Parts: sequence; structure tokens; C-alpha cells
Amino acid sequence: MSGQSEKRRRGGGRAGNAKRRSASEINQMPWHLPVNCDPPIAPLTDQGVEAIHEGAMHILEEIGIEFLNPEACAILQQAGCTVRGTNVRMDRHFVMDMVSKAPSQWTITPRNPDRKLIIGGRYILFGNVSSPPNYWDVKLNAKVPGTRETCQNLIKLSQYFNCIHFVGGYPVEPVDLHASTRHLDVLYDKLTLSDKVAHAYSLGRERVEDVVEMVRLAGGWSDAEFEASPKMYTNINSTSPLKHDFPMLDGWMRLARRNQGLVVTPFTLAGAMAPVTLSGAVAQSIAEALCAVALAQWIRPGAACALGTFTSNVDMKTGAPAFGTPEYMRATQMTGQMARFYGLPLRSSGVCAANVPDGQAMWETSNSLWAAVQSGSNMVYHAAGWLEGGLIASPEKFLMDCEILQQIQRYMDPDLVATGAQEIALEAIKSVGNDGHFFGTAHTQERYSTAFYQPFLSEWSNFEGWEASGALWTPERAHALYQQILAEFEPPALEVSRRDALADFVARRKREGGAPTDF
Amino acid sequence: MSGQSEKRRRGGGRAGNAKRRSASEINQMPWHLPVNCDPPIAPLTDQGVEAIHEGAMHILEEIGIEFLNPEACAILQQAGCTVRGTNVRMDRHFVMDMVSKAPSQWTITPRNPDRKLIIGGRYILFGNVSSPPNYWDVKLNAKVPGTRETCQNLIKLSQYFNCIHFVGGYPVEPVDLHASTRHLDVLYDKLTLSDKVAHAYSLGRERVEDVVEMVRLAGGWSDAEFEASPKMYTNINSTSPLKHDFPMLDGWMRLARRNQGLVVTPFTLAGAMAPVTLSGAVAQSIAEALCAVALAQWIRPGAACALGTFTSNVDMKTGAPAFGTPEYMRATQMTGQMARFYGLPLRSSGVCAANVPDGQAMWETSNSLWAAVQSGSNMVYHAAGWLEGGLIASPEKFLMDCEILQQIQRYMDPDLVATGAQEIALEAIKSVGNDGHFFGTAHTQERYSTAFYQPFLSEWSNFEGWEASGALWTPERAHALYQQILAEFEPPALEVSRRDALADFVARRKREGGAPTDF
Repeated sequence: MSGQSEKRRRGGGRAGNAKRRSASEINQMPWHLPVNCDPPIAPLTDQGVEAIHEGAMHILEEIGIEFLNPEACAILQQAGCTVRGTNVRMDRHFVMDMVSKAPSQWTITPRNPDRKLIIGGRYILFGNVSSPPNYWDVKLNAKVPGTRETCQNLIKLSQYFNCIHFVGGYPVEPVDLHASTRHLDVLYDKLTLSDKVAHAYSLGRERVEDVVEMVRLAGGWSDAEFEASPKMYTNINSTSPLKHDFPMLDGWMRLARRNQGLVVTPFTLAGAMAPVTLSGAVAQSIAEALCAVALAQWIRPGAACALGTFTSNVDMKTGAPAFGTPEYMRATQMTGQMARFYGLPLRSSGVCAANVPDGQAMWETSNSLWAAVQSGSNMVYHAAGWLEGGLIASPEKFLMDCEILQQIQRYMDPDLVATGAQEIALEAIKSVGNDGHFFGTAHTQERYSTAFYQPFLSEWSNFEGWEASGALWTPERAHALYQQILAEFEPPALEVSRRDALADFVARRKREGGAPTDF
Repeated sequence: MSGQSEKRRRGGGRAGNAKRRSASEINQMPWHLPVNCDPPIAPLTDQGVEAIHEGAMHILEEIGIEFLNPEACAILQQAGCTVRGTNVRMDRHFVMDMVSKAPSQWTITPRNPDRKLIIGGRYILFGNVSSPPNYWDVKLNAKVPGTRETCQNLIKLSQYFNCIHFVGGYPVEPVDLHASTRHLDVLYDKLTLSDKVAHAYSLGRERVEDVVEMVRLAGGWSDAEFEASPKMYTNINSTSPLKHDFPMLDGWMRLARRNQGLVVTPFTLAGAMAPVTLSGAVAQSIAEALCAVALAQWIRPGAACALGTFTSNVDMKTGAPAFGTPEYMRATQMTGQMARFYGLPLRSSGVCAANVPDGQAMWETSNSLWAAVQSGSNMVYHAAGWLEGGLIASPEKFLMDCEILQQIQRYMDPDLVATGAQEIALEAIKSVGNDGHFFGTAHTQERYSTAFYQPFLSEWSNFEGWEASGALWTPERAHALYQQILAEFEPPALEVSRRDALADFVARRKREGGAPTDF
């Protein structure tokens, strides 16, 4: 079957599908910070944890990491590290001393204090897909560059769904906006269309400082208030193997000084930028991450850091990256053990290699999201909307992923496994006996509306009922619902003075030319 | 498989989707009995386990179970149970004494001894979808009644895939065969097209005895050899709430006497046939199962029993059954804890409510299969091919599920989490330094072909490559591959004399009229 027949299957006079479900009827779970009540899966023995730690320490002590930022090198030299050119070696006592200063749990408070997040402990929080250059939806049925409009639409979804806790990077890169001022427009959109925790790309001084200022203005904070506790965060990626580049380090140090959230996520594809063996890839990833944590702690003892994992494997036949694989799951769990060893919060991701929101997309994404649960992850990036190894953002995939996220949150509800007398329900069992039905009992009726998770996207009617309602496959149902959510979207409240301050800031910075670009 | 054939498979010239992938080139994992190395997820406290146990004992002691089989009632009365009409009550000492006689691990040896299964311990084994009356495939794009041909085709898939360990019930009900002789034809097909462990429906004396005789003939065993250890198994379902019907009990007792495998699986939909609260539904399920185990152990101390779970929830708005939900996952994990408490192997399932093999199908199925892993399940029924809550069998879904099953098996490979010096790979990390790539290193090249799980169905090329190869969504790729597998299928070896004995038996029993039916 080709794309054409796929299109045929989707078409066929199904007028009215878009009106089939109303967004206002979505049975969303309320906003809350889910607590992961399952013990983590720990595939490494204590000796295994020790071996990876030893490997990471050896890398830091004997091989060194390239810091392509003179300021960072100078700081680390001052801290006692061995700096030769851009190569920085640090001994384990320094690293562990610095890491020990990092809090195991910290908070981020966005402009709406009700959206405050706790990063660490048993909390597991989810964020939208970030940074794909391209966009796909069911109606287009094509991969196209991201635009401000599609970026706004995905920000609206991020705000709409209570299971999305933070708005990470751009949910799709709006390439119709000039790179020098793109960050101003997207952050304006993000801070006006959403009141959830926002993020700054560490892609140059101006971008970081502009975003910091906009987050501060949106929150109505003084500089002192802004810096009293994290109000936003950044995520940096090492340039694996064994390298941190200039702008990432620059942003990292700026935000450390401003006391904001700091997530470091080496992108260590085993067999490509890291050893083909998972424990080697994890050891390298840990080394690349810990040296950044050490830098932040030297600058600001107690800086709010988190350890990110993005260790996956490649298709060894083609070099293509793979996601949501068994290897990905184990690497995520292993890194979780290391994060607990170092007392740092863990960030992982919801990922897949699939190009469209089909069965493969959902088994790969399910694998990665359950690995996030199993690893004890505290922040789950890209948890909704990701396709094609992060090169495509899709609103249908966003809704499909949110259905899984809500199920994970419901899975963590301790009521599900309660075993009090009311739950064992012997009276109800006795009253129904062997010839009845539980639906009509008081025990059932009292719990009728809240007993079970109610999906907003899953189709639970039988085949005939499903056919009668249009025979819509999951992405088609998601598309209709997405359109409804957009049509009914209302931005969260924002004081007019703060909105004006943001608009004025954007206008001024645009007049000044924004951030320098190479083009 | 060699890199060469892999290259061919991934190479260009994709004229004709059906020829795109050749089944003989599928990179299957070898036949083996996977060992689940993860600790089970145990959401119940010890007190919770005790509360459910107490609930089950109370049901058995104070409420009783209906045994709609006079022979079973007579046996249980003889055993000291309180029998009033069809209501049987048994005290906890009797139940626990009987349960203690059941082995925690046992074997089933089919006609090919290389396919011998170990049921229990840390083994996790998978079986095909069983019993749907209907069939769906991508080409038909419609729900149609099962036929002997589609049933045969699904048996061929069950035989073909090494990740399928046992061939459960009919993978689709061949309703074109008369019910009185259907079991003869399907068992003939099953025993000639497959050499894996087979199953008998407990749906009447003749059917059970016919299947027993056919399994015996296919294995070339004497009666004594057949009964020396299990060569097949049955699965019975209680008629929840609190009832076992005549034919199920009849088959159960017959196979207990013949020393075959016995799985009892209450079908307890919370809110319908069981309390709306999960622990109540599990307690009821345990009671319904343990009384059957007690009966089997009284008849044959040491009989090979397993505890099945099929506790899920209904859509409280419509009464439709739901599968692969958060509630399903927790109920499966809870029942796993109870199975370990009683020292019995656990059977669970791979299930979904979705009507077509789309995204919903795969998140629901992923949830249920990971719950099987998390619960420490030993047998996973319906692990490949199930749709529409078990009303539809689909070959595309079968292949999609097998991709997940292979990933689960790979996930359990202890090599993935090895942390020896070779795996930490400091030499490779040092040699690549900060400016290279690991692909060309000896460390990578030595592990090139086996380092990572290689999917047979997932598409890991980028969007453009995927488009160039036909833009096939997962079910479409699965369909093409399914056709190839069928075209190239070769039945396993079977001695001519045994095949003839089977054919003669079928012919004779058909002349005799088969099993009585109501129509």
C-alpha cells in the first residue's frame, strides 16, 4: 500500500469527522506533579556502577575533555584542573567534591507560581518535543519546514495538556523567522501562550540574555527575585566525544551565575560518538556531563544541575540513529543508577525513529517512556510530538503521546493498588454471588466515574462502532481533536503591563538587530 | 545473518513492495527460552498481598464457588469440601494444602523435543493470539470470519517466529469448518504445520480426548510415555463471577488425570464480572483460580498448574472491555505477586482494544507486554496478532507484535549491561579522543554485527529514504513481509508414519461424526 492508498483510506467523504470530538470534552487529568511510585529497574550491580564510575573518572583524569571556551578553561585552571590548550583534566576528588555540592532536588518557578516544578526525588515531569526543524501532520501528509504558526500551535498544545509540565525548546524550529530575532518571537509566543516553565537555548550570549530578560519580565520579577531561585532552565549537549563547545559553555556559565536550572545531556550514540558497548557509552556520557556539573558548582556552589541521558545506538548497517530500542532502555536505566549514585536529578526523553505516527512510532515511544519511568527519570524531554529521530514534530503524535503520558500518570496513582476492606469488596462479591453483574451494585456506582482511566483518544468501541464513526485510525482521530483544541484554545492570563513589557523588549531588541548570525 | 544480505535488503531497487523484503532474510533471534532478569514490579505491600489472600480465602470459605459439574462436586465432597447443590466451599487449610502440592516449575514437551518449554521460574514464554472469531488484514481492510486458510496461515506465522514458543488455541476460529469436526482439522494443521507446544480447548469430552490422542500420535508416544510428563496443556476460564462450567471442568479433570499442563484464567473485568476495585477483582480471580488448582491437586498431587490473570477494566461509560490500560498493568503485577505467594507459575496476555494495527494498538499492546515482563509472567498468551479485544486476529499485528517480543527478548540479554574492561572500553575512548568517530575502531568492528538488536520490521531510514521506498506505514510493511513468509514457509519435519496416523485418526473420527454439537 502506498501513500496514495493511505490517503484514500483517510479520505472518502468523512465529512463531520472534525466535529466528532470536542476538545472541551477531553477528560484530562488535572495538573499535578506525578510521583513515580515504582522502584527503579537497576540492571547494574554495585560493581557495575563502580566500574562505570571508575571509567568516567579515568576519562576525566587521564584523557580529559575539550572545553572550547577560554573563560571556562581559565575558571577550571583556577579551580586546580590541568588545562593544556583546550584540554581539561580534573581529578576525581575535585569532581566528586563539586558534584557533592549539587542539590539532589530543586525547583523551577515560572510566571504562574501554580506551575512550579520540583526537579528530583521521585517526581517525573514531562516536556514537549523540542527543536525539530520540520513539521508533519495528517492533512499535509508531507514533511515541511517549521513555521511560526506551527510552532505557536505546538506551544498551544504544550499549554493545553496538563500532562505536559514544561515547555522545552522550540517545539518546531520556525525557519520562516530570521535566525537573529527568532528567539525573541518564539519566546514572546511561549511566554504569552503558556504559563509553564520555559527554557533558553545556550546558543550565544545575546540569545541567553534576551531569554533571561524576557522570562524575568513575564514574571514581573526584580533581578534579585529572579536569581533567588530558578525561574527557567537551559539544556546543553556536549559535542561527543569528549568536547564542550563555546556557546553551550557560555550559556551554561551565564545561567549558573543567574542561579537558573542547568541540564547537561551528552548525545552519545553508541557505535558512533561513543563506544559500541553500552557501559562504555554511559561512562563517556557521565564524564562529559560531570565536568560541566563541576564547572557550574565551582561558579556557584549549589547550582541547580541535572544529569541528562541521550545514549542510544545506531543501525550498524547504515549508521542511522535508533531510538526506543532495547539498548536505549538499558542505557537509560543504567544512567539512572549513575544519577542516583551522584545524587543528581535525571533527565531522559521520549523518542522514536519512525517517520510517521504509526505502530512503530508507538512501540518505540512506549519503550522510551517506560524506560523513563523505570530509570527514575525526573524530567522527560521530547515526551510528546517527536518523530524521525527528532527531525519532525507532529501534532497528532503529540496527542498520541499525551494519551500515553496520562496513562503513565494514572498508573502511578496509589489508589489503583489499595487493598482496604472497601477495595477487597467482599460485601459486593457476596451480594452479586454467582449469577449477577457488578455494574448495578452500590459499590460500583459509588466509584463509577473515577474508577478507571478514561482515554481522550483511544477508541474502545468495537469494530462496527468504530466503522460507523468513520473508521478513523489513531492519527486521524488525533488530527480532528488537535483542530478542536486549536479552535478552542485560550491563552493563560497575563497582566497587560507584563505583556506590554515583553512586546516593548522584543521591539527594542529587533531594532538593535537581535543576535548576530552567520548569514 | 550476514551483512551482505542485510545490505541487499536495505538497498535500492524496491520495485514491488512484496519483493522488498525477503522472509528468508529476516534477522530472527534464535529459538531460546528467555529468562526475565528484571525483578518484578510489586505494587502491593506484604499487607496488601495478605489482604487479597484473606479476601480470596473468605470467598472460598464463606461464599463458595459454583461447580456446574457433578463429578467435580462429588470429588470435592469426598475431599472434605462443603457441597450444597452446585455450591462448593473449601476451607483455607484444604486450599493451601492442595496448592502446596503444585510444582512451581514444570515442563511441556511437544513432538519436537527441541521445543520443550519450562513453565515457571524466571522464564517468560510467548504464544500466538487464540480464539478470535474474525480476521482482518491490510489487503482486505475488512473484518471477516476466520477460515481454515487464514487459521493455517496464522499457524504458519506461529511456527515461523522463534519468539513464539507455544501455539495456543486456534489463532483464528475457522468458522468454515463444521463445529463437530473443526478441532480435528485444526489440530491436524497445527500438528503438521508446527512442532511447538499445542493446546486443547476444554470444550467437551470428545474434543479433549481427540486432541490428546492426536498430540500423542504426533509425538509417537505410548500412553505411558505421554503421561510421564506434560506434552500439551489446556486453559480454562471460570464463568465469573464465582462459577466453573461443565465442559471446562470436564477437560480440566481429564487432563489432570493424564498429567498434562493446566492453566486456569478467570476473566474478571472489574466493574462487570468482578468488583470495580482492582484488589477486589484480583481477590475474586484468585479464589476462582485456586479452587480449580485444588481440584486438580486432589485428583493428581503434583499436577502441573499455572495461575492465569485476565483482570482488566471496562469503559464505565459503555461497558466495553478495555485492555492494556494502567488498571490492567497494575492488576497483572498484583496477580504476579499473588502467584509468587502461592508458588504457582503465572500466565498473562498481550492485549489491546484497538480495532486495527495502529498507534493505539501498539501502545495498548506495549503496556500489556511490559506488564507481563513486570509481573514475572511465565506464559504470555495472545502475545502476537490480537486486535479488538480478542475478536479479531491480524497477520500484520502478529508481525508487529513479534517485533516487540524480539525487543523484549533482547532487552533481557545480560550482555547489554556488562561492565567489564572490554565494555567500559577506555582504550577505544582514548584512541578516538575528542575528534574522531567510533565506527572505524577495532573495538566497534569486532562487535559490529551483534552489538545491537536489528529489527525486521522497523524502518530506521530517514523520512526521505522511507518515502523513496514507498512511504509504507508499519502495517503495510508487515503485510508485504507476511506474504513473503507464507510464500517461503516450509513445515517442520514430521515422520510420514506419524503424519499418516494423524490423517487416519482424523478420517476415522470424522466418519464417527466428531464431537456432538448443538446445531
